[in-house]
Amino acid sequence: MSSNNYYDVTTWPVGNPSKDVGEVINSIIADIKDRQTQIDVNNGGKPGAVIYIPPGDYHLRTQVVIDVSFLRIEGSGHGFTSSSIRFNVPEDEWPDLHELWPGGSRIIVDLPLDGDGEESKGAAFYVERSGSPRISSVEFSNFCIDGLHFTSDGSGMPPENTYVNGKTGIYVANANDSFRVNGMGFVYLENALTIYNADALSIHDNFIAECGSCIELRGWGQASKITDNLVGAGPKGHSIFAENHGGLLITANNVFPRGASSVHFQGVTRSSVTNNRLHSFYPGMLILAANSSENLVATNHFLRDHEPWTPFLGVDNGLDDLNGLLCVSGSNNSVIGNHFSQIIDAQSIRPAGATPVIIRLMAGVGNFVSNNHVVAMDVHVTSSDSCFEAQVDALLTTETSDGLAVTAVMVDSESARNTILDSGSDAQVIADRAVNAFRATPTVGFPPTTEK
Amino acid sequence: MSSNNYYDVTTWPVGNPSKDVGEVINSIIADIKDRQTQIDVNNGGKPGAVIYIPPGDYHLRTQVVIDVSFLRIEGSGHGFTSSSIRFNVPEDEWPDLHELWPGGSRIIVDLPLDGDGEESKGAAFYVERSGSPRISSVEFSNFCIDGLHFTSDGSGMPPENTYVNGKTGIYVANANDSFRVNGMGFVYLENALTIYNADALSIHDNFIAECGSCIELRGWGQASKITDNLVGAGPKGHSIFAENHGGLLITANNVFPRGASSVHFQGVTRSSVTNNRLHSFYPGMLILAANSSENLVATNHFLRDHEPWTPFLGVDNGLDDLNGLLCVSGSNNSVIGNHFSQIIDAQSIRPAGATPVIIRLMAGVGNFVSNNHVVAMDVHVTSSDSCFEAQVDALLTTETSDGLAVTAVMVDSESARNTILDSGSDAQVIADRAVNAFRATPTVGFPPTTEK
Amino acid sequence: MSSNNYYDVTTWPVGNPSKDVGEVINSIIADIKDRQTQIDVNNGGKPGAVIYIPPGDYHLRTQVVIDVSFLRIEGSGHGFTSSSIRFNVPEDEWPDLHELWPGGSRIIVDLPLDGDGEESKGAAFYVERSGSPRISSVEFSNFCIDGLHFTSDGSGMPPENTYVNGKTGIYVANANDSFRVNGMGFVYLENALTIYNADALSIHDNFIAECGSCIELRGWGQASKITDNLVGAGPKGHSIFAENHGGLLITANNVFPRGASSVHFQGVTRSSVTNNRLHSFYPGMLILAANSSENLVATNHFLRDHEPWTPFLGVDNGLDDLNGLLCVSGSNNSVIGNHFSQIIDAQSIRPAGATPVIIRLMAGVGNFVSNNHVVAMDVHVTSSDSCFEAQVDALLTTETSDGLAVTAVMVDSESARNTILDSGSDAQVIADRAVNAFRATPTVGFPPTTEK
Repeated sequence: MSSNNYYDVTTWPVGNPSKDVGEVINSIIADIKDRQTQIDVNNGGKPGAVIYIPPGDYHLRTQVVIDVSFLRIEGSGHGFTSSSIRFNVPEDEWPDLHELWPGGSRIIVDLPLDGDGEESKGAAFYVERSGSPRISSVEFSNFCIDGLHFTSDGSGMPPENTYVNGKTGIYVANANDSFRVNGMGFVYLENALTIYNADALSIHDNFIAECGSCIELRGWGQASKITDNLVGAGPKGHSIFAENHGGLLITANNVFPRGASSVHFQGVTRSSVTNNRLHSFYPGMLILAANSSENLVATNHFLRDHEPWTPFLGVDNGLDDLNGLLCVSGSNNSVIGNHFSQIIDAQSIRPAGATPVIIRLMAGVGNFVSNNHVVAMDVHVTSSDSCFEAQVDALLTTETSDGLAVTAVMVDSESARNTILDSGSDAQVIADRAVNAFRATPTVGFPPTTEK
Repeated sequence: MSSNNYYDVTTWPVGNPSKDVGEVINSIIADIKDRQTQIDVNNGGKPGAVIYIPPGDYHLRTQVVIDVSFLRIEGSGHGFTSSSIRFNVPEDEWPDLHELWPGGSRIIVDLPLDGDGEESKGAAFYVERSGSPRISSVEFSNFCIDGLHFTSDGSGMPPENTYVNGKTGIYVANANDSFRVNGMGFVYLENALTIYNADALSIHDNFIAECGSCIELRGWGQASKITDNLVGAGPKGHSIFAENHGGLLITANNVFPRGASSVHFQGVTRSSVTNNRLHSFYPGMLILAANSSENLVATNHFLRDHEPWTPFLGVDNGLDDLNGLLCVSGSNNSVIGNHFSQIIDAQSIRPAGATPVIIRLMAGVGNFVSNNHVVAMDVHVTSSDSCFEAQVDALLTTETSDGLAVTAVMVDSESARNTILDSGSDAQVIADRAVNAFRATPTVGFPPTTEK
Repeated sequence: MSSNNYYDVTTWPVGNPSKDVGEVINSIIADIKDRQTQIDVNNGGKPGAVIYIPPGDYHLRTQVVIDVSFLRIEGSGHGFTSSSIRFNVPEDEWPDLHELWPGGSRIIVDLPLDGDGEESKGAAFYVERSGSPRISSVEFSNFCIDGLHFTSDGSGMPPENTYVNGKTGIYVANANDSFRVNGMGFVYLENALTIYNADALSIHDNFIAECGSCIELRGWGQASKITDNLVGAGPKGHSIFAENHGGLLITANNVFPRGASSVHFQGVTRSSVTNNRLHSFYPGMLILAANSSENLVATNHFLRDHEPWTPFLGVDNGLDDLNGLLCVSGSNNSVIGNHFSQIIDAQSIRPAGATPVIIRLMAGVGNFVSNNHVVAMDVHVTSSDSCFEAQVDALLTTETSDGLAVTAVMVDSESARNTILDSGSDAQVIADRAVNAFRATPTVGFPPTTEK
């Protein structure tokens, strides 16, 4: 390109992008800062730049440090492929595989990790700027960040199945405004995207899978959106996590297993989780914790079934079936028009013999739970060595031996003054009717209808 | 561009992109495969490439065959314009038109069709790779695929109005993972997008109109999304079709006429059709067929009215008004919070004198139909030679001679144990109350309210 | 780039893009029209072009006039930063700021304004073409349009806080088809985006803030979508406005303060406002006016609280608290499954001592209001000089002195035959039960439940 605010990592004179694209990008950022120094109160600016990463493999051995606004880093391919499936293919079959690794515009995170546990050091892209104004409009678009390998976690799980390696894709340490993460691919990172103190952030249309945790909005923040992503974390991590955020919109995401939770709110208020497709192998899919209040949880599709893929059989998040698929510790939330499918083997229920809970109100007041539909079935689980086929088979199975009794809504004594309407029959809702308003979903013949 | 994984069809030395861009792209793919042959178990990869198609007209006379992962084909303009309107402008007015054809980065599908009916042969882009792993992360972005002309179908319909020409835009024959189709335009193809066995596919923000069928997900698949598209098929085809998929998320689409259906599920389970705007000129807008089960159909806007554009008057999909706008043959689905507008001429109802049905449960058990609002009006239809004005006029018309009696919900005897709440008055719901739970939408004075 | 349909404003031989990018782009458009003149009834076309704007500051002193289809104008950065916060930082602190202005691919609107009030003259990009076909597939992508300064409006408000300057970002004057506005940034314009007579328009994933009005769809139109945007207008303007549109889909937007309304419909029919997050400092957040009918308003999160930022204290939209957060003058609309949070200081209610209204049905018939959840709290307002911190603090505050009594639904005598279900207790709904169907949200002990 002709403009001097357009950079291509493969043509920049400093460093070797194949060997260390981090050194190259840092050198480019230094150049931007050298050239864009003028403060002009009339109207001149520091417009930032775009750094282009063509398709290719780029090792990153130096952390990229971003402290300029209006920087766009852009590739030409999100490059996801399942490393998890590949690592679980016997090694003697690898020569028969078409390819072994993710691709596209692929950053291979090869940072030296000293194991001191300082999370930010393991980030491929580290955004850090204090002072005013907050760093704004940094954009990441259409490239791949690949952590390459997981490592042993001491549990006996094969190293490549641990979701642990101390690596993070993008880490934003300070208050920020109007950032965008679009069309990216993240794979085999312990943390894909960790962002503190976000305002008007957009995380849209990304592919974030086979990472320990996928999206974490930490600290506090407001008015952001997480929309239209394909997301799936590991059994110890979060697919989507937010703390102390207000006005967050989480919609149109397809969140697949095997995250410990699908969406986890910690002290989040006045936010929306609407219209997502959520799929998990464990209870505790959507958690509104730490007084998360006045949120809207509506028209989501929840599916909880069993892990069908052999390498992960027996792995879970430690929660038993009384926790519910949706767990609320907070007040004045709205839970409206969701579909819940609980498709499990009755033999696997924990505690053994318990009646699984779908929606559980643990603490708080004034929640409104209305028009939710619960489907529960007892199935015999079959697992397979083939991940895709196993998952599709499981998803399409609707033949069952029998229905499964569940508690559609359980209200703990620490939660009161809730309203529960048309979300379960009288027998399916455990709530103190003296302190919670309740209307049972009508069943045949009850309540008796009086014809005009 | 500088990188050797970036290709521009207009600068590639083999072939002439204006005359046959297919030959050019196949030559580029061959080059990618020649160069990217190494299997490196340490971390080298086959990163794929991006092929850029600048704005321009490119005839495609050789089918593009894609068998490499991480290939991105990218243009700079979706290029849609209505060919249908233009072909219905009298020919002597053509010299007065600003332009005659679609544009942008425009692939003109000029494949030799031998008429043997083998559908895949008519595809401009044919993706086919067997073996492991599944082909991954192929991306199509921001260009136009134009089928140019429709052909006579023997019905007497003018050839350009038949939606038939044996051409397909993109055809994916094998199991695939993490594909993306974004920002594309498709026009005048018999099939725009036909994809078998998709996993984690994203079809997002495309313009797919004036095609026989628009989006067909065939075979089986899982965890995909069809989001934020503008879509409209022809009277014999599908706007959005899926079979044997699980965990599919269809949301935020604006589906306009004149597809035989707006969304058609065949054996689809645990999927979502939420938050779409659906508009059709016929019954059978959303079809859950072949035991499609545990799906969530929520907060969609359904509008069924009459064809107002002269060239298509009298065309329909063959279904009568007892079929319903939403037809369910399956179990445990949730139908919650949808709006239905049925704006038709009572004189046109078929069978004559029948009471049209809005939601019909044909077979299955355990469906939950709650909080749907049905509006029905009897209007006098006026048609026009001008497509846009006619449609807008029709859409904005709310003056009516009279209300129209409808059956809001009809439950066939083959369907039982459903729950129907607040989706129609007692008189508007035809269901055996002995086997289905029912609560009528309250009407004035009924049920009597007991004040505290 | 190699193709002659690809233009870069920084390499075009006519004009100086830094000084007047308008002259440059107009010269490019003239070149496109010179070269693409052929009408070819066989299959040749006028494919249009892409004009690339690299990151940089570009003054626009000549209005860009677009009268060709298939033109894509594309940058590499939406470049938003808050000019509003910066202008409210004391001037002696400016030298300490990292940057003073928005950035990215930034068009600085420097048009000479003669103050004659002709709005279209103040547009940076003016799209105008009459005749047939309608102009199609113009695309604006990923650049910034910055109005630079606001000007005094005579009210005594500091000039930079007025939202007035006579400048518009993009103004489309004629009927148009299949336009796209994606990934753009708009800031400090009196009107960001004004589009007349749109068909199948897509406004997707933009950042439109600190503009007087953000999105206005005027005239009439159909089948468009406004999706996944971050939007926030000024106190005298519209965040999202549409008139005489049918089949409009507004979803997945995060609309923040301080627009006079969040979404305003004027004579809009059969459209959807679903699944948005709406936040306002005033009543009148969502207005369905002028017989707006058969619309679906579902699963939105409404938050109305108080302005916490010192510079705008005391500013409002003139509406009192009896207007409702959602105001309906129209028929047969569906209002389903929304969450409303009204978090205000009881001392500030106007008229003093009134009971604030949440949903108000002012005129029309047949509206269906069901399953909405209203939360109301009386809070003590604290304001701050720091915008971001103030807003986040306010958003996260759920401690209250007390609950606040509200009218959840008020039905005026001009509105009748509505159905109001589970959207407020008996005491919270003011409606003539003789002409409106009503079912109160159950409260503890009422209605009495009869156990089987």
